[in-house]
Amino acid sequence: MHREDSLQESCINTLRFLAVDAVQQARSGHPGAPMGAAPMAFVLWDRFLKHNPANPAWPDRDRFVLSAGHASMLLYALLHLTGYDLPLEEIRNFRQWESRTPGHPEYGVTPGVEVTTGPLGQGLAHAVGMALAERWLAAHFNRPGFDVVNHRTYALVSDGDMQEGVAGEAASIAGTLGLGKLICLYDDNGIQIEGSTRLTFREDVALRFRAYGWAVSGPIDGFDLDAVHDALRTAVENPHQPSLIICRTVIGYGSPLQGTAKVHGEPLGEENARAAKLALHWPEEPTFHVPREVLQHMRMALERGQREESRWNAKWKAYRTEYPEEAEQLEAQFRGELPAGWDCEVAEVVSGSSKPAATRVSSGLVLNALAKRIPFLIGGSADLAPSTKTLISGRGDQSPEDVKGGNLHFGVREHAMGAIAGGMALHGGLIPYCATFLTFSDYMRPPMRLAALMGIRVIYVFTHDGIGLGEDGPTHQPVEQLMGLRTVPGLTVIRPADAAETAEAWRAALLNARGPTALVLSRQDVPQLDRSTVASAHGLHRGAYILWESGAGKPQVIIMGTGSEVSVALEAGRMLAEEGVAVRVVSVPSWELFDRQDEDYRELVLPRAVTARVAVEAGVGLGWEHYTGLRGDIVAMRGFGASAPGEILYERFGITSHEVAKRAKRLLGER
Amino acid sequence: MHREDSLQESCINTLRFLAVDAVQQARSGHPGAPMGAAPMAFVLWDRFLKHNPANPAWPDRDRFVLSAGHASMLLYALLHLTGYDLPLEEIRNFRQWESRTPGHPEYGVTPGVEVTTGPLGQGLAHAVGMALAERWLAAHFNRPGFDVVNHRTYALVSDGDMQEGVAGEAASIAGTLGLGKLICLYDDNGIQIEGSTRLTFREDVALRFRAYGWAVSGPIDGFDLDAVHDALRTAVENPHQPSLIICRTVIGYGSPLQGTAKVHGEPLGEENARAAKLALHWPEEPTFHVPREVLQHMRMALERGQREESRWNAKWKAYRTEYPEEAEQLEAQFRGELPAGWDCEVAEVVSGSSKPAATRVSSGLVLNALAKRIPFLIGGSADLAPSTKTLISGRGDQSPEDVKGGNLHFGVREHAMGAIAGGMALHGGLIPYCATFLTFSDYMRPPMRLAALMGIRVIYVFTHDGIGLGEDGPTHQPVEQLMGLRTVPGLTVIRPADAAETAEAWRAALLNARGPTALVLSRQDVPQLDRSTVASAHGLHRGAYILWESGAGKPQVIIMGTGSEVSVALEAGRMLAEEGVAVRVVSVPSWELFDRQDEDYRELVLPRAVTARVAVEAGVGLGWEHYTGLRGDIVAMRGFGASAPGEILYERFGITSHEVAKRAKRLLGER
Repeated sequence: MHREDSLQESCINTLRFLAVDAVQQARSGHPGAPMGAAPMAFVLWDRFLKHNPANPAWPDRDRFVLSAGHASMLLYALLHLTGYDLPLEEIRNFRQWESRTPGHPEYGVTPGVEVTTGPLGQGLAHAVGMALAERWLAAHFNRPGFDVVNHRTYALVSDGDMQEGVAGEAASIAGTLGLGKLICLYDDNGIQIEGSTRLTFREDVALRFRAYGWAVSGPIDGFDLDAVHDALRTAVENPHQPSLIICRTVIGYGSPLQGTAKVHGEPLGEENARAAKLALHWPEEPTFHVPREVLQHMRMALERGQREESRWNAKWKAYRTEYPEEAEQLEAQFRGELPAGWDCEVAEVVSGSSKPAATRVSSGLVLNALAKRIPFLIGGSADLAPSTKTLISGRGDQSPEDVKGGNLHFGVREHAMGAIAGGMALHGGLIPYCATFLTFSDYMRPPMRLAALMGIRVIYVFTHDGIGLGEDGPTHQPVEQLMGLRTVPGLTVIRPADAAETAEAWRAALLNARGPTALVLSRQDVPQLDRSTVASAHGLHRGAYILWESGAGKPQVIIMGTGSEVSVALEAGRMLAEEGVAVRVVSVPSWELFDRQDEDYRELVLPRAVTARVAVEAGVGLGWEHYTGLRGDIVAMRGFGASAPGEILYERFGITSHEVAKRAKRLLGER
Repeated sequence: MHREDSLQESCINTLRFLAVDAVQQARSGHPGAPMGAAPMAFVLWDRFLKHNPANPAWPDRDRFVLSAGHASMLLYALLHLTGYDLPLEEIRNFRQWESRTPGHPEYGVTPGVEVTTGPLGQGLAHAVGMALAERWLAAHFNRPGFDVVNHRTYALVSDGDMQEGVAGEAASIAGTLGLGKLICLYDDNGIQIEGSTRLTFREDVALRFRAYGWAVSGPIDGFDLDAVHDALRTAVENPHQPSLIICRTVIGYGSPLQGTAKVHGEPLGEENARAAKLALHWPEEPTFHVPREVLQHMRMALERGQREESRWNAKWKAYRTEYPEEAEQLEAQFRGELPAGWDCEVAEVVSGSSKPAATRVSSGLVLNALAKRIPFLIGGSADLAPSTKTLISGRGDQSPEDVKGGNLHFGVREHAMGAIAGGMALHGGLIPYCATFLTFSDYMRPPMRLAALMGIRVIYVFTHDGIGLGEDGPTHQPVEQLMGLRTVPGLTVIRPADAAETAEAWRAALLNARGPTALVLSRQDVPQLDRSTVASAHGLHRGAYILWESGAGKPQVIIMGTGSEVSVALEAGRMLAEEGVAVRVVSVPSWELFDRQDEDYRELVLPRAVTARVAVEAGVGLGWEHYTGLRGDIVAMRGFGASAPGEILYERFGITSHEVAKRAKRLLGER
């Protein structure tokens, strides 16, 4: 063996046994994948990946996505060895409380981790979003001689990733768009938890990806460093197609149990760990062994990274001189800042008319007004743009022929849409939104959850938010989704009542830089609340606010509503007032925002002493006891909807002002 | 034009214009797809589909799945014309309150509708489940000379279906399994709502399906009846592979707007409807025109169907004589009956030990005990069988080589798994279950929702149900899923506390023939509640029951818990009792079951007068006010989990008996 070969082998074995030892120490984790994928990861990180371990935030770094998140120890070992701020102590602390080495990679916890992965398929789909963001920014900011945005997105994916539908959806989009800077290494080890992939996965993955429009290499021997190198080189040189490199490997390589499902998801055990070390000529002790020459070699990434970044800094400096406005703009975008006057055109588009309008329509106007001032607010819909009103006029359609196009077309692929939007936000430099019907938010819960967990700014536009959509029937009528979204920690859900609240909802979404926001909008027209007789929609920012009350004293009853049911609540309130009841009507556009207010404000809006409370919402009632308590009442759906005109459904399902008023009176009678 | 050709054209145009007129009349709906897909649907229904409109429940009928559910009027027109109990009046009432022609096809509402569709991708995936059920039943019940189970599953799919990941997952499974009796007609019209499919869908679908292992015909001209016929014939003759027939068509054919997105999702408008009729030589008036010869021809389906069914009845009669036990068994299975003594082996497997055990482990034992007596209880996991404990010992793995195999391997495809399980239930003759980690239930919400809407018996086994799973971290730790599932109307969610409750939970799931049940199980060991000192687990069937109380009088405080937190609640209760507090501990395994009990029972368990109530659950607290009210307290997660050993997480997140006791005392102090 050549000296160089032997050094490389040592580097690879260091990756392998850091993983083995860490999993062993934690008594939990996944040793098999790191042992099989270490060679391809080594080639990528040692010879291709452009990054500076000393500055994980360098905007022009290549992105590396470990879609096979269970192989986390492989990534931690790479980060540690190449010089990220992740000392060996953290590797020893793998999977322990408050360590920076959690069981699956978590964005924001570990420097160098670009995205939280673990739920399979998500990493690849997020990677597509990153590659798309890069291309869009490059198209808008690069100038002749100044490719200031020019980096690749690499993903390492497993069999499990390949089986998930979301990965297929995302791969189809990447192929259609021709995202040439996206490169996937596929760790094709033929084993999954239940056994051989033959059990359930006999498809020809290479052919499938060719069908999507990808360039495919292999299957190659994933342990043949030159073969991996050559395939990566070929991929890097293909600017027009995303590339898939299929690497045949052996899971748990070196262990007596290699090539079986037994090495996938639990520690090897002392004996097998020892045998693996023996087989690969690795010292049994000390554990967490990092040979000096390995560290020395791998840490050269720091120097290379510094050099690369310096080169880029020089280019950036020249660009700054030549194109000061663009440079400032791009820097601000990467800081996540909104431009001055970003919302100055909003008021105009919603204040004009007192005519009833669907909040989705108002949303479309607001979005367009915002997009004029925030050119990096970009997104699209899962083939429902004309219905969700999320097309931005004057912008082209993103495609290989128009890489500047700011209207994205996700196709009927809600799941990938959510993940791609997340990937765009993670990349930085733009604010993504995406849209579908509220009922189909069910298709994209996993990436929404990840966005909430990561605390990234993604805006979901969910229209057709209840039975009001009418004839399309119960498959299209959400009833449980609204409450279901409220249960997701870190997700802000806003359901505005009219155009004015819709404008504030969009403002709130953009101002929420530390988490995703879901806007929940009506298909059907809703009245514009006459703000000269009710409170300002600015109250939306506090989540709930007193919209109107019959008098100044303590109310006998409080009526609460959200979105299209606020006008129902208001009408009920006025009916009660006419009968002499002291009534307060509260608009509750966002539970998350309201629950974040201080005690005083919450008491002001919903005084503890007033227990006669009625909530009205055209969704399931479960959960509303959060505000009504057990002594209040809830006018809501008790099951799925039906196919008929919307007004008839409101009537038949009893979501009416008469019903609300009746229930309120019943509560008062009970007292 | 030959007379025969002209008659066929008339039939096709009748289908088209019934759709056009119905959508026009409803002022809502989708005319474009029926106009383009009518020819292929006609060929299928006129020449291939084995069905008896007079008996939609005939078990050996072919299944037809309109995956493109928005083309509902095409299906209703076919059902009406071929003689199902769907009079023209219902067509005229399209999309109206209580009509049998809702906006999207709904199972149980319209005779002949095999599955509720509309959410794209679901139909194809459900069809895979139907084809799998057919093959499994055929393998078990057919005898030489007696192919009593022998029918096909046809699906009609759209571009949107093809884009959805769930369809890709399901197609990969169908290809792997070689489901030769599954045949899909793909209405490839090149148009989706946002415009040309080129915008987002440039992949080679034929190649992709070949990669999955399908036989692919076309693209053929979808208006060429002979070509469609030949392709169907070829597909029918291929017993080893599922078949895809790609039919190029023109959306909204005949309308001046044909071939554009404008004819997709709204009425043509009077003028265009008129122009379309003119173009296709159709009388403008009367609307809902059905030429006599068309009805005569199409209604021949009744005669053909009667003949087919009679032939089958004769065969069945002979089979009954030859194989009386099998025949009786299969009939019982199709009636959905559980065999006598179905649960008689359950008690034994769970009553043996007082040692702590994870409820997933108890579930595995119970499932195996049930499967011995209920051989048609079949299912599998999304590549987590060893973790979800859902493998049934002694059964083979379903594959092309073992079509009898009763252990299914869905791969890492939760979404298709849910839909395939639904399709199996719809087919009838077996009871499907499927399994994954609770957090990944997010991947399969759409088919669970459909199962709930359709009221079919599918059992979901969701393990690793909270922070107790420990080191895998927040991506794998569900916090919002449990409450999120409770919001789904018609879904029964059960989270048992120990082995005894787990046995009852499985019983309840099997007895729930009219809807899906989700079993929510722990990864970590839980204590076996000593039933000699606490109430019988039989209380589970009432959803919540008094587990233990410190004395006979009225309690000062009620502690509630579910699943792994019941023992926490019990410990807290005993601690409080020692301090002299009169305390009641309630196990609440199922909200749905409890809320269905009569007022008296609910009052007995949770007396209104006792407002000091503390709930404990290792998930989000939102929603628990349903039982605690605003005067109680909730010990729950306030956000996502973390990666560390489970016991440490319980401690750090404060889900402990000490915390529960503390909160209870605080409540009492407040009074």
